Amino acid sequence: MSYNSFGHIFRVTTWGESHGPAIGCVLDGVPSRLPLNDAEIQHFLDKRKPGQNRFMTQRQEADKVKILSGTFDGMTTGTPISLMIDNTDQRSGDYSDIKDKFRPGHADFTYMAKYGIRDYRGGGRASARETACRVAAGAVARKILGTDIQVRAALIRIGEHEINRDNWDWDEINHNPFWCPDRDMVPLWEKYLDDIRKKGSSIGAIVEVQARGVPAGIGAPVYAKLDSDLASAMMTINAVKGVEIGEGFNAAYLGGEENADEMYRDDNGLPALRTNHAGGILGGISTGADIVCRFAVKPTSSILSPRKTVDNQGRETEIITKGRHDPCVGIRAVPVGAAMMACVLADHLLLHRAQQG
Amino acid sequence: MSYNSFGHIFRVTTWGESHGPAIGCVLDGVPSRLPLNDAEIQHFLDKRKPGQNRFMTQRQEADKVKILSGTFDGMTTGTPISLMIDNTDQRSGDYSDIKDKFRPGHADFTYMAKYGIRDYRGGGRASARETACRVAAGAVARKILGTDIQVRAALIRIGEHEINRDNWDWDEINHNPFWCPDRDMVPLWEKYLDDIRKKGSSIGAIVEVQARGVPAGIGAPVYAKLDSDLASAMMTINAVKGVEIGEGFNAAYLGGEENADEMYRDDNGLPALRTNHAGGILGGISTGADIVCRFAVKPTSSILSPRKTVDNQGRETEIITKGRHDPCVGIRAVPVGAAMMACVLADHLLLHRAQQG
Amino acid sequence: MSYNSFGHIFRVTTWGESHGPAIGCVLDGVPSRLPLNDAEIQHFLDKRKPGQNRFMTQRQEADKVKILSGTFDGMTTGTPISLMIDNTDQRSGDYSDIKDKFRPGHADFTYMAKYGIRDYRGGGRASARETACRVAAGAVARKILGTDIQVRAALIRIGEHEINRDNWDWDEINHNPFWCPDRDMVPLWEKYLDDIRKKGSSIGAIVEVQARGVPAGIGAPVYAKLDSDLASAMMTINAVKGVEIGEGFNAAYLGGEENADEMYRDDNGLPALRTNHAGGILGGISTGADIVCRFAVKPTSSILSPRKTVDNQGRETEIITKGRHDPCVGIRAVPVGAAMMACVLADHLLLHRAQQG
Amino acid sequence: MSYNSFGHIFRVTTWGESHGPAIGCVLDGVPSRLPLNDAEIQHFLDKRKPGQNRFMTQRQEADKVKILSGTFDGMTTGTPISLMIDNTDQRSGDYSDIKDKFRPGHADFTYMAKYGIRDYRGGGRASARETACRVAAGAVARKILGTDIQVRAALIRIGEHEINRDNWDWDEINHNPFWCPDRDMVPLWEKYLDDIRKKGSSIGAIVEVQARGVPAGIGAPVYAKLDSDLASAMMTINAVKGVEIGEGFNAAYLGGEENADEMYRDDNGLPALRTNHAGGILGGISTGADIVCRFAVKPTSSILSPRKTVDNQGRETEIITKGRHDPCVGIRAVPVGAAMMACVLADHLLLHRAQQG
Repeated sequence: MSYNSFGHIFRVTTWGESHGPAIGCVLDGVPSRLPLNDAEIQHFLDKRKPGQNRFMTQRQEADKVKILSGTFDGMTTGTPISLMIDNTDQRSGDYSDIKDKFRPGHADFTYMAKYGIRDYRGGGRASARETACRVAAGAVARKILGTDIQVRAALIRIGEHEINRDNWDWDEINHNPFWCPDRDMVPLWEKYLDDIRKKGSSIGAIVEVQARGVPAGIGAPVYAKLDSDLASAMMTINAVKGVEIGEGFNAAYLGGEENADEMYRDDNGLPALRTNHAGGILGGISTGADIVCRFAVKPTSSILSPRKTVDNQGRETEIITKGRHDPCVGIRAVPVGAAMMACVLADHLLLHRAQQG
Repeated sequence: MSYNSFGHIFRVTTWGESHGPAIGCVLDGVPSRLPLNDAEIQHFLDKRKPGQNRFMTQRQEADKVKILSGTFDGMTTGTPISLMIDNTDQRSGDYSDIKDKFRPGHADFTYMAKYGIRDYRGGGRASARETACRVAAGAVARKILGTDIQVRAALIRIGEHEINRDNWDWDEINHNPFWCPDRDMVPLWEKYLDDIRKKGSSIGAIVEVQARGVPAGIGAPVYAKLDSDLASAMMTINAVKGVEIGEGFNAAYLGGEENADEMYRDDNGLPALRTNHAGGILGGISTGADIVCRFAVKPTSSILSPRKTVDNQGRETEIITKGRHDPCVGIRAVPVGAAMMACVLADHLLLHRAQQG
Repeated sequence: MSYNSFGHIFRVTTWGESHGPAIGCVLDGVPSRLPLNDAEIQHFLDKRKPGQNRFMTQRQEADKVKILSGTFDGMTTGTPISLMIDNTDQRSGDYSDIKDKFRPGHADFTYMAKYGIRDYRGGGRASARETACRVAAGAVARKILGTDIQVRAALIRIGEHEINRDNWDWDEINHNPFWCPDRDMVPLWEKYLDDIRKKGSSIGAIVEVQARGVPAGIGAPVYAKLDSDLASAMMTINAVKGVEIGEGFNAAYLGGEENADEMYRDDNGLPALRTNHAGGILGGISTGADIVCRFAVKPTSSILSPRKTVDNQGRETEIITKGRHDPCVGIRAVPVGAAMMACVLADHLLLHRAQQG
Repeated sequence: MSYNSFGHIFRVTTWGESHGPAIGCVLDGVPSRLPLNDAEIQHFLDKRKPGQNRFMTQRQEADKVKILSGTFDGMTTGTPISLMIDNTDQRSGDYSDIKDKFRPGHADFTYMAKYGIRDYRGGGRASARETACRVAAGAVARKILGTDIQVRAALIRIGEHEINRDNWDWDEINHNPFWCPDRDMVPLWEKYLDDIRKKGSSIGAIVEVQARGVPAGIGAPVYAKLDSDLASAMMTINAVKGVEIGEGFNAAYLGGEENADEMYRDDNGLPALRTNHAGGILGGISTGADIVCRFAVKPTSSILSPRKTVDNQGRETEIITKGRHDPCVGIRAVPVGAAMMACVLADHLLLHRAQQG
């Protein structure tokens, strides 16, 4: 039980607020003798870093990670790995407007209801800044997964525009500001999102995360299911409101003949699935097919239109959330989703090894 | 960490297979001095019981629950409550066909890949029978919630037919075999599902669970979020492939103006939300509005059409899954979903009290 | 977090009171395909069973264990193993005396202080009866340990009489009613304990548990230390008031020269320890030498002398605890201690495999 | 499950090695709105700080703690509190001797057996330096306990010299370098320890920790017992080899008449205990009397006498552990023991509130 940790064996604890001196995480249960250095983690942090193009918040953070423990001579030692990232751009400015008012759609009110105190200078723990720690953790998780397991994520929908899956090309995702796997969609999204950005508005999105190379047999049948741990992990990301595996909600529309994946004997003589409606998981355990998980990201509530709300004293008022915000936070959620899947898979690989050797 | 447990303070551990002598659960962390007897738990089990109408599996189970520990003089004592339900209708029949073949869409193959052994006489732990324990646990969870918090669930979609939410009437759900809150939809579903049943086919569904009366402030900000624990809980139910909160996947289509719930001062002078796009949760913490959670249930893979598969030896073959099955397992998932939400809320109420008093 | 569970991967949850219909446990995380049947568990339960000689409580319990789940065709399946033992001799008799009075040295008062309710018919969860579940769990743990690891326990002190360690002979422990490894001590203990028994008094004892064959490298450095998990496990046994590893409290008297075990190269060319002051654990991790753990068991507080106490209403009164009690509960704690060490070692073997393969 | 965390609700995770850039901890589950600043934590760290007199290691560490998260305007916010302490005196010097040789009585060999790699520049995680984090955590735990609960610790034995309990005076402990509560013992210990220090030897010790003001009813009956959590907590401290509660091992020598604490009605009309053989805990739950816990600390194995050992290649050799070491590490364990008890009590207070309100 922990409010700020997840994972069973590979266990991630994060700490830090958007406007404190630093954020960080402690990674426990990492096997020893994995090569690991700052640069390998930095590689993934740089992908999530804000301010890289006009479709992201203009907050400028170096997001430089430091390894404070758990490695020696460039190798993991099996002891906890402490990672820290200094906050360098906590532009304080004028908080008078948000200090006492609850921003609609933000956690201001619920934090106050729970704790009776909140750091009004930013989102506190609810800030997207916390996700940098997840990305750092994911980089270490990938070391546990090894090179045979590949975890990748893409943005497949922004508002009313969803990609054409027939155009899916993983090589594309690094060549546009959206992690979009459909080259044809990019110009449309650019125009669509520019309009939203200029209006000071925001829009929702859907992220898809896939893992290739996960062997059959990983997961557990009932309450430590691979899919329930994935659902939990994705739902912990800020602004996520829905998670699905394989056909997901579409399975509600299907008959058993369409949905159940038939099996065959593959070229190696092993059982394999002809289709992947299940998204790589049956009964909570991996089938050997690609793990496929999607999640919906709501539009950020930080918009320029005035909104009705109340203040700390319960008085009705209006608020406009100025500041440096993302027109589509779903974009930055892409590397975060991949990191979370890497963490869940690394944990379940170790967990499987625990019980089954 | 536990493969067969969930919850932080109110902790549920279930055990048992569909074809063993019994199934059961152990409930830990229940506060003392709550009135509790067998009949109160039985009330909820009877709602989930199979064989009650032609739209459910015809397996006949008395599903009689026995309290084996944790109560004294009709009151909880604070010690673990052990509940047991005998299996009475494990009609064994002829397993020769499914003994060696992997049923497509079932967990047969993945169990074998994980454990190298499986109880081929039924679904084992993956059987829907396990959910009886969740319903029993949910009955105890409701005692913790008290009468001010009301948890209810309904079926809102079967295949291509979704209810009209304008017709929503909670009183209707007990007056039709589908837990349908839209009286007008019932005859259509009856005809639709009869067709599917007669063809020996199956169909997916969507369940909606709501909780009224949850005070603002329950939950936690990051990795013990109320919504991530709900997502995890629902995703552990058999055949569930997607979970969403509030607007859920629809939030991907919305702009920030539409999605963020404005606030006002209610008649008691307290902050309240005008709309409930958030589904009662912001930043992982309850807003005081209704908690709204939906999940998608895939069609059962036990269908009469012959399906291609492989056997234990990796040889290609065909299989028809005869037996007593549900044309729409989503129906029986309705009380299970409500039970799981009751468990998660009870746990979080205690967890909140732990930290914040 | 669980009030009635222990273990990380191999996880034991027990339930049941001394005067309810049954007691039992659920064992989670057991690897699949281990041969397991009722008789193998019964073998160990029979060793703990009360009423076997005049030095134990005369409560007569068949202590017949039933496996309710988790095995198939005589093999573990990897799913939770539910074990149940019916209570057959809950001789109710007359509780009028203990119903309202707090027995000194018992948990009556503290249960009431915590829960505001207690099952006055016996010790409830605090009854030694609960330890039958630990012995059953230990029998399964031994299956995980395999035949190379041997866990044994002995009674080394009753009151003022401690064995002569030079006479230690493991073969002796099954040939006397005390699990005494020193044949010469047996007649003395018999006479000593007969006197105590006839007076209606009771006496404390010390149990020693040893494990042979545990490979070096099992455990963890800081908060999941093998020794801290052993200390916790032993301290959860009723009436245990102290735990020590290797030299234990005697280490307080020693200098570094005496206490630190020198190393040498053994016949296999491997590093080994010349002595075993450390009790087989350094830095929380096994050295490969025998694990040696001792614990002190207080005298039972159920004695025939009248004792001053208060009742539920806070009135001062006297009490004599009649009933069927153990003159030296330490005797029955011997197989319980061995079982607990088997559980901890099995858990740590799996935990080590999780992180380090 | 976590290798580097402890606690259920108030949960402490520590990280860092003696020769890395820093050490630290993350404290989760702390209630909000407790006043907290660096100085309050520093107060306790200063008590544990090495190099304060000739009876401690001469390593010079400022041990300056920084709060990196979880507070705002001098109050806790309910989010994780990250504390960091820079390592300033990792005098590297010449490790050639200990790099390849296993120091007898140290965890060098067991770390290598487990992880296949070790940071040979110091004790790594097994260094007493890690305990600074526990002391910092304990300072925060005391905030949760409030002023009504007082946790104190003292050294009661060094080698062959134990204090006279009749002389016990808590005010004395801050007026001598040993935390000795018996003023008469101080000169004797000074002379005794000077001799040991000059010989380059070391000696064991016994620490006693007491808590006053813990209300009756805190703890749990079976596997989250207050005493088992205390035993586990103390046994996780470096060099601790035994733990006992109340009479502890002495209970093995006692009869039930002597050991069971009689009860009476106190001046407030409440049930109370005449004696405290139980050490404040019965059935795992506090009685309201002082919690009394003792633990034995072995002599450090870093001594100047040459010792036989083996090296990484399994070759037999000798080693002398030069460096800055403690003649009696038990001294520095005193504030650590108090901190650990504060952590366990804070956690159990919250845990009790969770279940029982």
